[in-house]
Amino acid sequence: MKAIKLFITAACLPLFFLNGNAQNLKKTKFNTLTILGKGANTESEFHRVDTVKYPDMPKGVKGLLTNSAGLFVTFKTNSTSISAKWCVTNKKTSSNMTAIAYKGLDLYIKKDEKWQFAGVGRPNATCSEYDLVKNMDNSEKECLVYLPLYDETKSLEIGVDENASFTELENPFKKKIVIYGSSILQGASASRPGMAYPARLSRSTGFNFVNIGLSGSAKMEKAVVDMLADMPADAYILDCIPNSSPAEIKERTSYLVKTLRSRYPKAPIIIVQTIVREHGFFDKSVGARVSQQNEEILKQYELLKGQGVKDLYFITAENLLGTDHEATVDGTHPNDIGFDRMLQKLEPEVLNVLKKYREFMIK
Amino acid sequence: MKAIKLFITAACLPLFFLNGNAQNLKKTKFNTLTILGKGANTESEFHRVDTVKYPDMPKGVKGLLTNSAGLFVTFKTNSTSISAKWCVTNKKTSSNMTAIAYKGLDLYIKKDEKWQFAGVGRPNATCSEYDLVKNMDNSEKECLVYLPLYDETKSLEIGVDENASFTELENPFKKKIVIYGSSILQGASASRPGMAYPARLSRSTGFNFVNIGLSGSAKMEKAVVDMLADMPADAYILDCIPNSSPAEIKERTSYLVKTLRSRYPKAPIIIVQTIVREHGFFDKSVGARVSQQNEEILKQYELLKGQGVKDLYFITAENLLGTDHEATVDGTHPNDIGFDRMLQKLEPEVLNVLKKYREFMIK
Repeated sequence: MKAIKLFITAACLPLFFLNGNAQNLKKTKFNTLTILGKGANTESEFHRVDTVKYPDMPKGVKGLLTNSAGLFVTFKTNSTSISAKWCVTNKKTSSNMTAIAYKGLDLYIKKDEKWQFAGVGRPNATCSEYDLVKNMDNSEKECLVYLPLYDETKSLEIGVDENASFTELENPFKKKIVIYGSSILQGASASRPGMAYPARLSRSTGFNFVNIGLSGSAKMEKAVVDMLADMPADAYILDCIPNSSPAEIKERTSYLVKTLRSRYPKAPIIIVQTIVREHGFFDKSVGARVSQQNEEILKQYELLKGQGVKDLYFITAENLLGTDHEATVDGTHPNDIGFDRMLQKLEPEVLNVLKKYREFMIK
Repeated sequence: MKAIKLFITAACLPLFFLNGNAQNLKKTKFNTLTILGKGANTESEFHRVDTVKYPDMPKGVKGLLTNSAGLFVTFKTNSTSISAKWCVTNKKTSSNMTAIAYKGLDLYIKKDEKWQFAGVGRPNATCSEYDLVKNMDNSEKECLVYLPLYDETKSLEIGVDENASFTELENPFKKKIVIYGSSILQGASASRPGMAYPARLSRSTGFNFVNIGLSGSAKMEKAVVDMLADMPADAYILDCIPNSSPAEIKERTSYLVKTLRSRYPKAPIIIVQTIVREHGFFDKSVGARVSQQNEEILKQYELLKGQGVKDLYFITAENLLGTDHEATVDGTHPNDIGFDRMLQKLEPEVLNVLKKYREFMIK
């Protein structure tokens, strides 16, 4: 069947040219770009962190840091269409996510000084090619393409019309705020990569929120703390309570906070309680665990404040997911409504902290 | 591997009993229930419509009517856990949907007179078994389980604790409002079955909104109109503009509306314009088509009103998806934010129409 199709395509090509219908034959030039959005430079182009430096890091964490959550490319072009060729691995999309979020791409274009959604790259195999958008006017546009949230990206090329301009741009987001957290931070279950909450925070504030979300594995291990301490940043947000047991929170929070405080004496550190589990309103065991996690992290925060740790802040779980119980895909992971509500609470509270610091007083 | 696992399981069973640890061995009794949420009774248990009666219906439409979108079961039980065994087909989940929405289940439990989300059934193969919720108290609860939106359900059994009560309930939603529409209505891209917009409307209003969403195929063909006319209802909502070309809207709207009006002289008929395509703000071709669709359906509505068709209403596309351009998964299909915004506009406008009719004045 494929052979027949190829033959027909080949047989038809001269007809297009004979009819002067060449504009129907898409001619695209493909470009590779610098991958942005990392906590630090890496040798592995599409990995968030080079984990070889941290031999004691749990294997699961190392694997997750190869996922391209939060990574993106940015460029300007006057092309009327923008396409992408990219490869990921053959691992299966989790049942609580779309393949577009897990293995796909989405495109934003700057319009009236805001980043506006323009299209997606739908994955259809390990390697995919897809028109993110087409039929645009030929004015020059600034573009931003987010990489897959939960898979390891193996390659990425961005295609534009053969005669279009194409210039790579610098990271449009200023300063650096490292966020360390769970699957929720990594992006489960945003509907597409650009809807993960750090990406949304970056677009809405203009600050560079770096996604160190580690699905199921944000447990404040010493090797992970050492890795975070190797990421110089202007602020740190710790949203790692969902994965840590009450005992782990008790044992490990102090080392995490004090290590960051000692390496970066003035950078604000913001701790966030875990969101509720929506099924925890019925499952007594789940409900009790979340309460214990949130009680324990509040205790640890107060202990650290009592010990004189400065520039340490706390955001409670209250109302992070709203009140209608419809904000998750599976009881645990926010759907896009859930992330929208998290943003409505987190953005003003985080900005309230950041605006106290001179580094964030930028235009 | 499976054989080894089975052997280990079998080998371990007596130990559990010897240790008096029998409570760790879950004992579940499974029940089959009447499938609710259909437009009319069907011989095929899990199909929305028996299409054999409509020989001229397009094959694609017949296939879609085997999808269990909008179907559900309801029961009361004092079980502390609720599980499900269900089978679907082996077709692949679309890249813009989660497998939970496409092939899975979700559970709502009545709490304080409202349906509250309680858990999901994650599909992991053609046939799956999953605990929707566990560790509950043993008070009696009313439960509602939604079936897969985009796959054909082949079987469904609901499991409860061996000694728990279990009683099937009648449809908790009153009256009947048939909604005919596209993939958006069928549920792309809600994060789970209960988040499709007709299901949300039913829970929030208490009325029975019946999902006749036909992905990509809501084109008002004569055979489909005849099928709709065979579904007696108290009201009809026509959200079928997204799939119909301007020419199809011009040719077919009149027959659709007049057929329903003649069969059901007093039932209100509400036409809804298509939501915008978010990528249509950049893709000029897509943007123009949506404008033409919405202009044409407005013309047809005015024409029908001019011809004296009574009890006909119109809801515009204005603000159906909000203004931040973040309300879709792929430019076309609403994510849960998009459906939330559609609800905020549709629910009051639909209720404004319905409350004019005596049939809907129920407590």
